[in-house]
Amino acid sequence: MREFDFIHWIRSVTRLDSAVVPVGPGDDCAVVWCGGERLLITVDQVLDGVHVRLAEHGAAAVGRKAMARNLSDVAAMAAWPMCAVASVALPRGFAREDAEKLYMGIRDAGLAFGCPVVGGDVSTWDKPLAVSVTVLARPAGVEPILRRGARPGDAVCVTGWLGGAWRGRRHLEFTPRIHEARLLASRYDIHAMMDLSDGLSGDVKHLCEASGVGVEIFAAAVPVHADLKNGTMDPPTADPLTAALCDGEDYELLFALSEAHAAALLAEQPLGVPVSRVGTITADKTITLILPDGIRRPMPAAGWEHTT
Amino acid sequence: MREFDFIHWIRSVTRLDSAVVPVGPGDDCAVVWCGGERLLITVDQVLDGVHVRLAEHGAAAVGRKAMARNLSDVAAMAAWPMCAVASVALPRGFAREDAEKLYMGIRDAGLAFGCPVVGGDVSTWDKPLAVSVTVLARPAGVEPILRRGARPGDAVCVTGWLGGAWRGRRHLEFTPRIHEARLLASRYDIHAMMDLSDGLSGDVKHLCEASGVGVEIFAAAVPVHADLKNGTMDPPTADPLTAALCDGEDYELLFALSEAHAAALLAEQPLGVPVSRVGTITADKTITLILPDGIRRPMPAAGWEHTT
Repeated sequence: MREFDFIHWIRSVTRLDSAVVPVGPGDDCAVVWCGGERLLITVDQVLDGVHVRLAEHGAAAVGRKAMARNLSDVAAMAAWPMCAVASVALPRGFAREDAEKLYMGIRDAGLAFGCPVVGGDVSTWDKPLAVSVTVLARPAGVEPILRRGARPGDAVCVTGWLGGAWRGRRHLEFTPRIHEARLLASRYDIHAMMDLSDGLSGDVKHLCEASGVGVEIFAAAVPVHADLKNGTMDPPTADPLTAALCDGEDYELLFALSEAHAAALLAEQPLGVPVSRVGTITADKTITLILPDGIRRPMPAAGWEHTT
Repeated sequence: MREFDFIHWIRSVTRLDSAVVPVGPGDDCAVVWCGGERLLITVDQVLDGVHVRLAEHGAAAVGRKAMARNLSDVAAMAAWPMCAVASVALPRGFAREDAEKLYMGIRDAGLAFGCPVVGGDVSTWDKPLAVSVTVLARPAGVEPILRRGARPGDAVCVTGWLGGAWRGRRHLEFTPRIHEARLLASRYDIHAMMDLSDGLSGDVKHLCEASGVGVEIFAAAVPVHADLKNGTMDPPTADPLTAALCDGEDYELLFALSEAHAAALLAEQPLGVPVSRVGTITADKTITLILPDGIRRPMPAAGWEHTT
């Protein structure tokens, strides 16, 4: 079974009242009305052996990542986090000291963005560590930015550098782009946005599907992370471009905006991290990679999906 | 490591601004302010081999329980559920059909109380099924009822019948007491309330700790479930009273109210399920069981806690 197929099916059987739930499953956060305000909700889990290796990364880093993945989803909507709850399935025999490190990792990653942990659930079982964090958020003075607003002719941009996050350990240390997203949304008319968790090649497809458009990605413009090019990765990467396109866990922002706004943004570079234009939205719904020599090919199909 | 000790430690290191988070970890739901309204949040997980046996109970029942446990926490605050998100860790090779049944179990249990699933996260791993559901709720026209308001002299009551829920399969079929809780809170001055998930003996201690009080429980008044007495359990229960006190997963309401209000409630029996008075809150902080012959003894220490 493919996860994305299952998620598509869930969406197909979900009927929500848009007056109550303006955004349901399929975006980075759901949006519901609460007391005359919009409330954003996102949930993400971290499983030992899948998203982390507890023995290698340590409990604090696992906790940190469990919170930060959710904060990255909040950033993807240009929202502010509000509070979080966490459920934790501890392996039997888990040391109290490690449980405390895990909690502190979750807590401190949230507090760095004003997002306290207000509740949770703790169980113990004979299986590996599983952590699920739910974050609530509110609009940050701007409309929540969805995946579905990209228009033909829009420029497609990303923050930061892509690829090699797992091997380079950046998947444990990334900064959720909450401040960057808010600044982007307050200064430029961002039509669609999401965070890069499954890799640019897969995630740009999700953004295009949601918007009913296609995209041309310029291979030469993809900001390949320096680790992939300078030989510091062990083993070295044979194909840095494919790694930058297909590796997951960058937790950078992927967004679409008009040519004019993109030109201003690229000239101003206001974020502290670089913004790169990597492509153009097309009316044609294909996802095309344009190589440096001008050859057009379908985007590599990878992306970070589990199959059973 | 004991779960409750860890949870106590979490509370001890948690500093929340009560103007923003009126109720933090330690009650059935957390309460935060959102758009001038109070928002309630609760999270509970269901782990295969701990809270359910997937192969025996089936995916639909597992999904149902994962949602219903949370709705029971919402009932415990006399609130109305609003929406939910779910994270699911599927065992590799999990059949698509079972994944659909699982989702429908979650979804339909929520919809029965107007609580749609608005988002989620799906992962796959080589381990057993783990489901975590977060439910958001709002006050049901009454103040959220906390664990902390019980006063010396209050009557202690429960809904329904207790004990044998696991073996009798009621842990898969219980009705979250949302309607009952709202009716109780609208007609009577309920000082403190929680749901019975860990067993009366353990849960009444939590309610007393939160309120800074003690309790005397009258053994003869505990509404022992008929299954424990009529020999339909296989194997039969040697000690029905201990089972009713110490078995978990009743998902009934435990609450404290004044003698006068309790007298009215017990005479009126307005809930459809019976309400039984099982004890009296004391200023003395001990938890005492009074046997039918008048002998006083400490409450059995059981309750449904995992230790590592």
